[in-house]
Amino acid sequence: MSELVLRGGTILTIDPQHRVLSGDVACKDGAIIQVGGSYTPTTSDYQIVDCAGTLVMPGLVQAHVHTVQTLARGRADDLELMDWLRGVIWPYEGSLDAEAAGAAGELACAELLLGGTTAILDMATVHHTDEIFRAAERSGIRATIGKAMMDAPDTPASLRESTASSLAESDKLIKRWHGAADDRLRYAYAPRFVLSCTDELLREVGVQSKARGVRIHTHASENRGEIELVRQRFGKDNIDVFADLGLLGDHVCIAHGVHLSAAERALLAKTGTHICHCPSSNLKLASGVCDVPALIAAGVSVAIGADGAPCNNNLDGFLELRLAALLHKHAHGPRTLPAPEVVKLATLGGAAALGLADKIGSLEVGKRGDVIAIDLSPLHQVPSSSPWSVVAYAAKACDVRHVAVDGRVVVRDRALQTLDVRTVRDRAVSAAKRLFP
Amino acid sequence: MSELVLRGGTILTIDPQHRVLSGDVACKDGAIIQVGGSYTPTTSDYQIVDCAGTLVMPGLVQAHVHTVQTLARGRADDLELMDWLRGVIWPYEGSLDAEAAGAAGELACAELLLGGTTAILDMATVHHTDEIFRAAERSGIRATIGKAMMDAPDTPASLRESTASSLAESDKLIKRWHGAADDRLRYAYAPRFVLSCTDELLREVGVQSKARGVRIHTHASENRGEIELVRQRFGKDNIDVFADLGLLGDHVCIAHGVHLSAAERALLAKTGTHICHCPSSNLKLASGVCDVPALIAAGVSVAIGADGAPCNNNLDGFLELRLAALLHKHAHGPRTLPAPEVVKLATLGGAAALGLADKIGSLEVGKRGDVIAIDLSPLHQVPSSSPWSVVAYAAKACDVRHVAVDGRVVVRDRALQTLDVRTVRDRAVSAAKRLFP
Repeated sequence: MSELVLRGGTILTIDPQHRVLSGDVACKDGAIIQVGGSYTPTTSDYQIVDCAGTLVMPGLVQAHVHTVQTLARGRADDLELMDWLRGVIWPYEGSLDAEAAGAAGELACAELLLGGTTAILDMATVHHTDEIFRAAERSGIRATIGKAMMDAPDTPASLRESTASSLAESDKLIKRWHGAADDRLRYAYAPRFVLSCTDELLREVGVQSKARGVRIHTHASENRGEIELVRQRFGKDNIDVFADLGLLGDHVCIAHGVHLSAAERALLAKTGTHICHCPSSNLKLASGVCDVPALIAAGVSVAIGADGAPCNNNLDGFLELRLAALLHKHAHGPRTLPAPEVVKLATLGGAAALGLADKIGSLEVGKRGDVIAIDLSPLHQVPSSSPWSVVAYAAKACDVRHVAVDGRVVVRDRALQTLDVRTVRDRAVSAAKRLFP
Repeated sequence: MSELVLRGGTILTIDPQHRVLSGDVACKDGAIIQVGGSYTPTTSDYQIVDCAGTLVMPGLVQAHVHTVQTLARGRADDLELMDWLRGVIWPYEGSLDAEAAGAAGELACAELLLGGTTAILDMATVHHTDEIFRAAERSGIRATIGKAMMDAPDTPASLRESTASSLAESDKLIKRWHGAADDRLRYAYAPRFVLSCTDELLREVGVQSKARGVRIHTHASENRGEIELVRQRFGKDNIDVFADLGLLGDHVCIAHGVHLSAAERALLAKTGTHICHCPSSNLKLASGVCDVPALIAAGVSVAIGADGAPCNNNLDGFLELRLAALLHKHAHGPRTLPAPEVVKLATLGGAAALGLADKIGSLEVGKRGDVIAIDLSPLHQVPSSSPWSVVAYAAKACDVRHVAVDGRVVVRDRALQTLDVRTVRDRAVSAAKRLFP
């Protein structure tokens, strides 16, 4: 299928002019070749998807998820971060075999695509990262994935690795997967957080990532307890530690950033480091509220993510987008993060965090065909007003009707085209039964 | 249809023992006669609804909505309360004719039922309240509705009424609708808020509501600007004003209560007055965060509501329930409002606020058959864990498969049985076009 026409929708381009158009979005060989107006296929090898009555927009980009955690959905409610990690998540990750990791990855990718998320920055666990890549490959999602790196002495035994093996395993995964599936899959180094890594590992990740042109995905400043432990070890805060170790830059995406000083925000902005805001997760783990308006005012690039199923408990980009739009207004005023701004965080902001700002995040000629069509007929969207308002406040993941990635239809009329949903469900349920007998 | 069997689900009863059962929920002549086990109909006049693979639970109860505002969805984003009221909502309400009010009411009731809300406490506008009752009657929802009372001198002309006519119109509506549709419809006096009413009206509402056994539904302490205006007029805060005017008690439900002192909370608890927490609305209008844990600790009865479409922009009980579960943890700790507690606010808490604690809010023999069945197969709920966690954190309005009110099926396999959705949509779109040309 070399041409794809998403026909006859209202098009929220999210281009620099914020244009709202009507008509077709056409893709050829995976790239967008026309936005708006009427497109006539130039070959006999084409597919037309009816988008009448839908809002056609770029797919959501989530810059912080843990697809491998999905089997622990609902198993870790009402806990604080360190209890959640030590009591449930690390034991869960340590108990995963390849089959369970693959089941979790497929389940997550399927949920994400059905809900209109077309690209993710994903942190796997220490082992079985090949299985996550395979799941992403099969599902058709665009994914930048990294194995979690954990070589600190107090890491639980089931996950602890040596510095050398952590780097060697990352090397192997880069060779195997970075640029795979026509560059739909990429690698990112994923040192879990400062506390799970030795200085040596963090320093080497900083050097290697620059040398190889591979991004870094990590966590920082999520929780006050974590920050206190970082201060005990380094005598300074996360972002200063990252600066010392060579871990800041436009190639770095840090999840959370809930408790940052003005100086840390300035350093993030100066270095071009990205922050991924995860509002549901931060609230559920009682971590706090990331001051997104202050980050934006300081010039920091911000994206949005659902984090993992055990701290959310969905992987729903629309839910996170809406919560981000609502959460900061009472502290900063009702005009804070208005609909267009928050919709851009969830699309262009995510694209920038993945290093793909030139390829995805808006519907513009030359970008990749990562496109979703939102059904405007459900009553919770009636009557329809501004497309920005629809996306920010009213639309839901279940309204997503069609999804294309790289110009290939992966969800059509709410049905996943790449994986059999019943098989995905059965595999996940069966793996979860082994893990939580 | 005298018997209804919701067959073969997992049953979250929300009874005093928090029992989770499996099997059938059976209703006869609108009342629940069996919960769990297998039920064999005793007459030939029965209906069986397959609930295998679903979670069967009491319908959600929203104790503060404005169905009449639904046509203004997406028309009042990013504004603070008083600007939102004066700039958009009052002009909108003032411009409504009977047809538009009816269209808004039908649209809202249909959205609510399709999303699993089976009962509401609804504030209409000053005029056309008959249309809202008719919409609720036709849709099959359980509704306690009141016309907004607005006799203060600075009320906009299109809504202002005399004290006498406000009371007389309420009287007429009580005679016509209180107890109608086999007691599915009830009346509640709805003085909009202190600032929109004269002291005389408020005092008379306090007297009349007790004399007639009719409830009161109002707003208070939503926004700091509003509180300041109340202080200027009375020299005291909302709840003290209500106490002076005879407007507190178990028959009163106050929406919001965002900014309350410890003394006000104690007075609410002592009098049995209900607070309806509207988390999305409070965040979107930048009003603040109602301290729900403090209210509960003080012994105040708390319910949940979506408020109106222009400040939400959905009428989705599951979205509000989840946000209520998340929003208070970072200030009070991760165990705050755990899943079972928040699910009870959205069911039993709402029932109490409507004065229907003995009739709805849980699945128990003798209560009315207000029951919903949530499809557990969507991938965002896989793997399933505790039913409480599913409802609090993972389930969505679009997962609601069947809905019964008073033992009558109003939604079956996600399709509304009482109104034609296409007609509801067309009527709403057409009315909205006249209002927002």
